[in-house]
Amino acid sequence: MTLWLRYSHQGRTGFGTLDDDHVAVHDGSMLDAPRPTGQRLPLAAVQLLTPCEPRQMVGLWNNYGQLAEKMGYARPEAPLWFLKSPSSFNPSGAPIPAPRVDVGKVVYEGELGVVIGRRTAGVSEAEAAAHIFGYTCVNDVTAIDLLQADPSFPQWARAKGLDGFGCFGPVISTTPPPPDAEVVVALNGRERQRYPIADMLIPPARLVSLLSRELTLLPGDVIACGTSLGVLPMRPGTTVTVTIAGIGTLANVYAPADAAAPAA
Amino acid sequence: MTLWLRYSHQGRTGFGTLDDDHVAVHDGSMLDAPRPTGQRLPLAAVQLLTPCEPRQMVGLWNNYGQLAEKMGYARPEAPLWFLKSPSSFNPSGAPIPAPRVDVGKVVYEGELGVVIGRRTAGVSEAEAAAHIFGYTCVNDVTAIDLLQADPSFPQWARAKGLDGFGCFGPVISTTPPPPDAEVVVALNGRERQRYPIADMLIPPARLVSLLSRELTLLPGDVIACGTSLGVLPMRPGTTVTVTIAGIGTLANVYAPADAAAPAA
Repeated sequence: MTLWLRYSHQGRTGFGTLDDDHVAVHDGSMLDAPRPTGQRLPLAAVQLLTPCEPRQMVGLWNNYGQLAEKMGYARPEAPLWFLKSPSSFNPSGAPIPAPRVDVGKVVYEGELGVVIGRRTAGVSEAEAAAHIFGYTCVNDVTAIDLLQADPSFPQWARAKGLDGFGCFGPVISTTPPPPDAEVVVALNGRERQRYPIADMLIPPARLVSLLSRELTLLPGDVIACGTSLGVLPMRPGTTVTVTIAGIGTLANVYAPADAAAPAA
Repeated sequence: MTLWLRYSHQGRTGFGTLDDDHVAVHDGSMLDAPRPTGQRLPLAAVQLLTPCEPRQMVGLWNNYGQLAEKMGYARPEAPLWFLKSPSSFNPSGAPIPAPRVDVGKVVYEGELGVVIGRRTAGVSEAEAAAHIFGYTCVNDVTAIDLLQADPSFPQWARAKGLDGFGCFGPVISTTPPPPDAEVVVALNGRERQRYPIADMLIPPARLVSLLSRELTLLPGDVIACGTSLGVLPMRPGTTVTVTIAGIGTLANVYAPADAAAPAA
């Protein structure tokens, strides 16, 4: 199992693999023939960045059976997706800033994220697995009251695209999560969401295949696979964690008193 | 009036200003202190690229009075927006490829595009003008049958995010279009859409200000200001042009027989 991360250290950006409590620094491209430099940095000495730099994050709606059943949603024939704004991209450890305008309730949505490894256009499900670089944790933060705030126009991009609302990380695991893996979300350490990824309606390889028939995915693009039961609002100052076995824990504080919007 | 463009020439990417039928080549950054190199290239010798490289294109819904009146839409209090996938970005002169899957009717939507010049977060309407680098033509191509194809989830990102569906260019004018400017769309030379930009409900500076309270806009980001009356489907092989006085004409062929999806 290889865990990739990006970091900032002494004002410089780099990437490498996680080796216990150290980063094995690499150069070149993470997604294409990375080379170890031999340098090792203590994990505690670096600041985590998003583990890749997506052009886009595609988010899924209605992609888990238990949630669909509870809500009475039909099983989708094709992926039902939206886009998270690049302004939302936010690494583990960074605050999720309070929106600059009143948006009502803000919820977490813990999700499995799929990271694309190479140009992917019109691939079959069998081919798709080779186009997946790895897996990460996603918190698809959503200003849920905005979704239906205007009866004439559902505002998915707005509700999910606010600054810092697209948390992912802390690392990318190149090994798929085990079949019995769960997505576990805790607020201030108290478990609030736990669901099995095996309940996914359109699983990763099929998702990549179907999406790639519609739009070309490029290296570093992230697909957030959708959430399931247990979504709740967050109060200011709450620490929210998304944990997936084999990947790790994505941790962010929602609306800490001293956090400005990220410098991006 | 300065007209900026990006191009490919003999395998190299560059940018410069349009000077009659030549490009006055510049180096550095188009959006920050560009420097003329003295080199001039015939416009006919270069291949146009998108005139900037947006991280994101924000598209507006319901932003023109005549369309709102006809459709019975309420005047929006805040911008009602969606995101165009980066996979859709497409320069003037490039084909709009036929989708790889059957998506039903595909329509053009001629629009004014606003290009952001610098980091823009929480700015006032008075400040916003200084954050606008310039203006371009947009064709917000839309697979309109997809929008409501699933009654449980409106598919704006999908309908508008297919490969090549976000055409913009050919240039960026740093001068705002004149107050009486119109957006004019023609199919194979026959005029099909003509509306005044003065009918915009939330005009550019106010749009930039309101959007910037929600998400941080970065240099090169594009806001497609929405369309008005006259949207129609395109048949394969149709040339669609979007013309705005002071900017120029964005031209693309929809679904030519020999066009594959763009290499992006």
